[in-house]
Amino acid sequence: MNKYILLIDSNDEKGLVFNVTKILFENDLNIEKNNEFVDKENNKFFMRTEFTGSINLDEIKEKIKSVLPDNANIRLISPEKKNIILMCTKESHCLGDILIRYQANDLQANILAIISNHQSLENLVTKFEIPYFYISHENLTREEHEERVIKVIDNYNFDYLVLAKYMRVLTSTFTNKYSEKIINIHHSFLPAFIGANPYKQAYERGVKIIGATAHFVNDNLDEGPIIYQDVVTVDHSYGWKDMQKSGRDIEKIVLSKALNMALEDKIFINKNRTVIL
Amino acid sequence: MNKYILLIDSNDEKGLVFNVTKILFENDLNIEKNNEFVDKENNKFFMRTEFTGSINLDEIKEKIKSVLPDNANIRLISPEKKNIILMCTKESHCLGDILIRYQANDLQANILAIISNHQSLENLVTKFEIPYFYISHENLTREEHEERVIKVIDNYNFDYLVLAKYMRVLTSTFTNKYSEKIINIHHSFLPAFIGANPYKQAYERGVKIIGATAHFVNDNLDEGPIIYQDVVTVDHSYGWKDMQKSGRDIEKIVLSKALNMALEDKIFINKNRTVIL
Amino acid sequence: MNKYILLIDSNDEKGLVFNVTKILFENDLNIEKNNEFVDKENNKFFMRTEFTGSINLDEIKEKIKSVLPDNANIRLISPEKKNIILMCTKESHCLGDILIRYQANDLQANILAIISNHQSLENLVTKFEIPYFYISHENLTREEHEERVIKVIDNYNFDYLVLAKYMRVLTSTFTNKYSEKIINIHHSFLPAFIGANPYKQAYERGVKIIGATAHFVNDNLDEGPIIYQDVVTVDHSYGWKDMQKSGRDIEKIVLSKALNMALEDKIFINKNRTVIL
Amino acid sequence: MNKYILLIDSNDEKGLVFNVTKILFENDLNIEKNNEFVDKENNKFFMRTEFTGSINLDEIKEKIKSVLPDNANIRLISPEKKNIILMCTKESHCLGDILIRYQANDLQANILAIISNHQSLENLVTKFEIPYFYISHENLTREEHEERVIKVIDNYNFDYLVLAKYMRVLTSTFTNKYSEKIINIHHSFLPAFIGANPYKQAYERGVKIIGATAHFVNDNLDEGPIIYQDVVTVDHSYGWKDMQKSGRDIEKIVLSKALNMALEDKIFINKNRTVIL
Repeated sequence: MNKYILLIDSNDEKGLVFNVTKILFENDLNIEKNNEFVDKENNKFFMRTEFTGSINLDEIKEKIKSVLPDNANIRLISPEKKNIILMCTKESHCLGDILIRYQANDLQANILAIISNHQSLENLVTKFEIPYFYISHENLTREEHEERVIKVIDNYNFDYLVLAKYMRVLTSTFTNKYSEKIINIHHSFLPAFIGANPYKQAYERGVKIIGATAHFVNDNLDEGPIIYQDVVTVDHSYGWKDMQKSGRDIEKIVLSKALNMALEDKIFINKNRTVIL
Repeated sequence: MNKYILLIDSNDEKGLVFNVTKILFENDLNIEKNNEFVDKENNKFFMRTEFTGSINLDEIKEKIKSVLPDNANIRLISPEKKNIILMCTKESHCLGDILIRYQANDLQANILAIISNHQSLENLVTKFEIPYFYISHENLTREEHEERVIKVIDNYNFDYLVLAKYMRVLTSTFTNKYSEKIINIHHSFLPAFIGANPYKQAYERGVKIIGATAHFVNDNLDEGPIIYQDVVTVDHSYGWKDMQKSGRDIEKIVLSKALNMALEDKIFINKNRTVIL
Repeated sequence: MNKYILLIDSNDEKGLVFNVTKILFENDLNIEKNNEFVDKENNKFFMRTEFTGSINLDEIKEKIKSVLPDNANIRLISPEKKNIILMCTKESHCLGDILIRYQANDLQANILAIISNHQSLENLVTKFEIPYFYISHENLTREEHEERVIKVIDNYNFDYLVLAKYMRVLTSTFTNKYSEKIINIHHSFLPAFIGANPYKQAYERGVKIIGATAHFVNDNLDEGPIIYQDVVTVDHSYGWKDMQKSGRDIEKIVLSKALNMALEDKIFINKNRTVIL
Repeated sequence: MNKYILLIDSNDEKGLVFNVTKILFENDLNIEKNNEFVDKENNKFFMRTEFTGSINLDEIKEKIKSVLPDNANIRLISPEKKNIILMCTKESHCLGDILIRYQANDLQANILAIISNHQSLENLVTKFEIPYFYISHENLTREEHEERVIKVIDNYNFDYLVLAKYMRVLTSTFTNKYSEKIINIHHSFLPAFIGANPYKQAYERGVKIIGATAHFVNDNLDEGPIIYQDVVTVDHSYGWKDMQKSGRDIEKIVLSKALNMALEDKIFINKNRTVIL
């Protein structure tokens, strides 16, 4: 008895649940979890099903395809560790949190490589016997630097590229190349502050809550579909550096939770939103 | 086109989703929301489906019944306002929160009556033109008092009996009579404190978080399946009366959220747990 | 034995705490709570002291003034109910929350009047025997409408003007006239969304957290020093109207908490921030 | 110009703030932060002052002592890294979180040693070049095992002993020996569950919130003054192992925050409560 995960997103039509579950039933497969969501505004259907049984993956996938609308995306997977690449700069809080989970075998992923534009975290990373690629951006154009990064990345067959406090803006050439594969973390405020040093701006407005947002990266680095968010409270006694420090604690938790959702195949991208099933 | 909600709980079997959605499909009904949950440990299946169409309720219910295991519970309802009775003692925070929602037409319920063992809230309640029954417990045994309360309750055909800070212990005769219909709110602490004045005990242990739990009432008044919980933070500067005051804010939000879940037919009771779909 | 609250904000200097507490000590006054905060960046000193004893208010205030820098603000008050005016439009959640606290004698305030540009809430307000002024803005310029509002306000001697979901933009003439006296509540998102229907924008970005911010109003209605903030979580199944509904629950709690801080004389305004002691 | 932290707890008396700040003023010291708290019920006074200047520590401490009640505790310290020892069993989440902070120089502490009753975490710890003492409890009485642990501990001069998921019950001989020095973390539920496998009990009651409590250890391992608490939400789809997994994320954050409060000298113990200034 093996376990499988089926993920479908397609235009919505009458009878989709019936038609899909019919195939599972006829093939003697046992549904263990089943979640659907219909985005009525955009007439989109999302379904995530965990089932057990013994199947020929391609055959079942073909049968499911035959009962769905033409544009349907179907992922039918046997759950196993995903492959990820991490990118970072100087701060270790997000990276360290992932490394500790990795070391404890708590992360459903192999870390293939860690790429940084600084050497600062090499000492930490090598403790965990993971290849560390130091690719300085000094004296390079953004494009030249990214080319070197891409050269490393393209040596690997990876599922997700995680920006664990990678502090360089990426070109849309880069983000488009790895569309729907890049997960980023960044601080968030109520309200938001745009421009240089948002922590300082938040401090000056006297915000009482600071947060973090993990999201997929699209053309605009700090936008893209939100995966997970959380906040911590601060008060007037926090200077902006204290806020930044508090921000780190929530950033690492939010990034790790979002990464886990991706590794467990729970995320659909629906235009600029996510559906988590 | 009408809207319907279908709620099923039964033993789990292969093909349940398929069999039920088949009936909906064949009757030209359109699923708008569908959630299932399988409690594998207890082999129980829960399903909540919102669909639109035009049906003969009894006929469809009969068809669904025919494809489910014998012990299945099926609720097939046309969503409309539920009828509720509230019970309270002296504190107005939970009651008031419900009354303001009721007045704003934000509550999917008719409030049939409010019963109290004190007169304190009569003035507030009558502003909202709802019958207020003052049934003092003075000089009565617990059983005698409850008999008088039951006499009032049984004049009404109600869906839920909400204990909005009703501070009397109920006998199991009473709670069994209205099994799965009574919703209660009470304070909660991390860790819990048993016995008289838990706020004072929590204060003495220096707790930093106080919470509230809304739950169905079973034999033991403060136990029974939990519907919703939330917390607020406190610190050393809070005396136990300040904690109690903070507790009130969270109690009213938690009770109103739990009540809304019940009014929207989202709750299943699964042994001593709830499943919220 | 009476209770007093002393609030000082001034430029920071060595010896301020010593000099102030010296006066309290020499006058046989007993400090029950004492909090200070120094904003080192701006060299500002804030102190809030609760003490008991028997004093001539003006005499003690004069003594304290003599040991503080010239520009110091000193408030020395005997805590009693403040006077407030509420403004609202059509939504009752914030107003209702305040009314229920008021009715339960849980609010350290007299509500002098409620002013609205709609009649919708008149029925609710009059239940609580509070004057309701319906001042329509129809066919009036913003200035003309505000003049009529000001005419009502200026009949009263009030401490705070609370915008309990008053949905009209105020001119800077108005907000400057009642500088540091107007408390507003508005929704907040991570990240923020500017322009029409922010709930819809938040929905389209798929935010997972929505919040509320209570703040003093300055020239720009939705800015000004933040008093209190809190958030609730939402998910992909929330349409933007559901988000708005969740937003209401957090708005009312945040506004009532901020109002209580003001009524208990805990707030200092420090440029565009608050210090809460 | 050096920075100092002064911590006082004593019986409350009139004039304490005045008397202490007088000494600071006369010695030309500049108060940067000052917080007091009076526990009126127990007539206890707590004060934490950060100041800058140039002093003879012993001399100033003596002067302060002379103006305080006899039983006063005075700590006057020049802030520097504290020394800590960690104890753990098999789980790495709390330990790893502390190690990553330590490696990033984000922890105001030297980690002198890590002691475990298992070998599981040796591989992780040695990456960070910290002595790891594996002291198995197999075939030993509780007392014999603790004696071996104590032998290691007593080689070091330490400030705090942190139980980072050390899963053995400690005797009161042990906890009394290191009174007010041991910080522990444990899961917390609303309500609490006593006995074996509380996660399973919490699951069976269907709790919606699970939390963690960091506290000083007294005679009873899981009691003692609470330092910090926080919670995460769960739902019916969480099995008890999922709850445990969620619990780990909140445990590590809560323990690290509590440890930081201790390292920054912010905690007073007041009977069975803490005062955090």
